[in-house]
Parts: sequence; structure tokens; C-alpha cells
Amino acid sequence: MQRIDEQIRFAAEAGLLKGVLRQTMLTRPARRENSAEHSWHLGIMALALAEYAPADTDLGRVIAMLLVHDLVEIDAGDLFVYADEEQQAQQRTAERAAADRIFALLPGGQAASLRGLWDEFEERATHEARFARALDRLQPMLANLEAGGGTWREHGVTADQVLAKARLIEDGSKTLGSYARELVRQAVRRGILAPAAR
Amino acid sequence: MQRIDEQIRFAAEAGLLKGVLRQTMLTRPARRENSAEHSWHLGIMALALAEYAPADTDLGRVIAMLLVHDLVEIDAGDLFVYADEEQQAQQRTAERAAADRIFALLPGGQAASLRGLWDEFEERATHEARFARALDRLQPMLANLEAGGGTWREHGVTADQVLAKARLIEDGSKTLGSYARELVRQAVRRGILAPAAR
Repeated sequence: MQRIDEQIRFAAEAGLLKGVLRQTMLTRPARRENSAEHSWHLGIMALALAEYAPADTDLGRVIAMLLVHDLVEIDAGDLFVYADEEQQAQQRTAERAAADRIFALLPGGQAASLRGLWDEFEERATHEARFARALDRLQPMLANLEAGGGTWREHGVTADQVLAKARLIEDGSKTLGSYARELVRQAVRRGILAPAAR
Repeated sequence: MQRIDEQIRFAAEAGLLKGVLRQTMLTRPARRENSAEHSWHLGIMALALAEYAPADTDLGRVIAMLLVHDLVEIDAGDLFVYADEEQQAQQRTAERAAADRIFALLPGGQAASLRGLWDEFEERATHEARFARALDRLQPMLANLEAGGGTWREHGVTADQVLAKARLIEDGSKTLGSYARELVRQAVRRGILAPAAR
């Protein structure tokens, strides 16, 4: 196969992400969100919220990471953020196998470079990865607020649990972390998020 | 409204693009494509096909442009690429009005900067815009090939018409232009694209 045929084949395979449904319920249109449009939305958020990234953050790298971060779900599916530890461990194994297969569709050097973006996102060791992860955590919170509760209501999630997950937002951006905590307080006041498990 | 509230409001409004359906029929999942996931797919293609952009192309700018290029469809809807000239003129007017409204949701400087990306894409004067436009033209061709004809069959589009539209691909990337012409020849040989109007 020619180099360009491999690249086009990778792009076609990537397109399958449009068929992977997430837990997130959209309001308009009222349906579950797929992981491709979710990834796009994170890219838009990166552009709109760039100024809240730490100084010297390479925004192009953040966005590239966001574009590829969910490709592994083509094989591994999407796991709900509140799944238990055993499910999460299984998911990590499945996602690594998926990354091995999917990025390897590209020619060698390029496969390593895009796989590197995925690894970086997972490892959360750089400013870029932490900011990308913060956006990935913030977006479903915004969707739940818009939906008047969304997956929080559906799965009986409480404010404590949301705040625990929101630590990753703080870790990527102080401002977005504070903003997220304020959103949780609002949601509790509005009665669309239970304060704590009883 | 605080600056960050305006930015979050813009991101929420942008999310409506998930509800804008394009002509393109996807194969897996078998349904029409929406403009948000389409924009994401173009970002992935930009990463995979970056080497075919002219030298000195700023890939980060190409991707940012691709992320925002269809936002105007939230108000103006998507127009089929083979619509007649009168419809296209009306569409351009509607899209400019949409751009005026949607980008203005952002704080001043940022509104101008993201609106600038949209204008740049439309004007097709820079390497970055031409490469972005090339990808935007190439992606539905790939979808039609995958679908065994797709919108070409559905609307009785011929190879001449596809080749005329493919000039924009050539204009953004010599290699992708040649590749697209080869795809058209293949489609004619496979009998999924009529050679010319009779």
C-alpha cells in the first residue's frame, strides 16, 4: 500500500468514532452524544478557553491531543466516568490494545507521533495533557447542567462524586477548576444534583 | 456577564452544530453526518495528511479553521455543494449574518480572532485556508466512495461535476488533487459514478 493510502485508510477507520455513543445526553438535539462530535466540541472549548491554560501551553498540541484522545473507543467503547475500579482497569487494557491497532494503520513515524499524543493525554504529565484532560472533564458537566441533571440524575451521582472528578479540572487549570466547583454549587442549589450520598 | 461566562455560552451555542445534518451519508453508522463530527473528521485528516500541505503551512491554524468553519450552519444550515448559483448566493448572505451573531458571543478580541479564522477559510487566500478547503472537499468524496456512490448516486452527480469541484483540492494541495482525480477515475470504473451528463 502507498503511504497516502495508509493515511486515508487511517482517516476512514477514525470515522467509525461517529458511531461510538457516550453516556452524555445532549439537549438540542435531544440524544446521546457520540465521541467524534464530543472531541470536536473539546477543540472548540480549547479555542474559547485557551487563556485559562498555564503559561507556555502549546494550544496546537492540546487540540491535536483532543482530536485523537478517544480514537481507542472505536475498539474499546466508552466507559462511564463513575465506573468502578475493576471496570476501569479492564478499560485501560482494552484501550492500550486499541491504540496499538489503530495508530499502527499509519506509516511508521507518523504512527509513533500520533500514538505519542494519545500516551501524553493518558499520562497527564505535561501542561498540554492536563489542560486537555480538564476540558474533557468540564464538557460533560456543562451538558448535565444544560440538561437539568442529565447523567447525574440518571445514575444518582452526588456533588461529592462530581467534585472528586473535578480535581482533574483544577489540575489542568486553576480558573476552570474554580469555575467547575461553582457549577457544582449552582447545580446543588437548583436541585438538579444531590449534595451527598446518604 | 463575566468574560468566562461569555466563553462558556459561546461553547454551548457551538454545540448546536451537532444537530445540523449534512447531505453526506455515512456507512458505519449508516446515517447522515452532522457538521460537528464532520469538522472533527477534517481535523483528523489534517493530522494524517499534513505532509501534503505546501511548505510553511501552519497546521495549528489549519485545524483551528476547520473546527470553526461550519459554525455558521447553526443558523444558516448546510447547503449541498451542487446547489445552484442563486441558492449559493443566498447561503453566503445567511452565513455572514450567522458569523456576525455567533462569533460576537465571545469577548471582543477573541470574537475578532475566531471570526478572522472563518473569514480566512472563506476567502481562501492563504496556504492554510486552501489546505483546509481541500480537506473539506476531499472528505465527502471519500464518504461517497465508501458508501458505493452516496450523494453522487442520490443526486445523479457525474464525474465532470465532481472533477470541477475537485479543483479546489488541487488548489490546496497538488498531491491531494492528483489523489482526488484518481479516486474519481476509480469510481467511474467501479460504476458508482456516471462519467458525464448525457
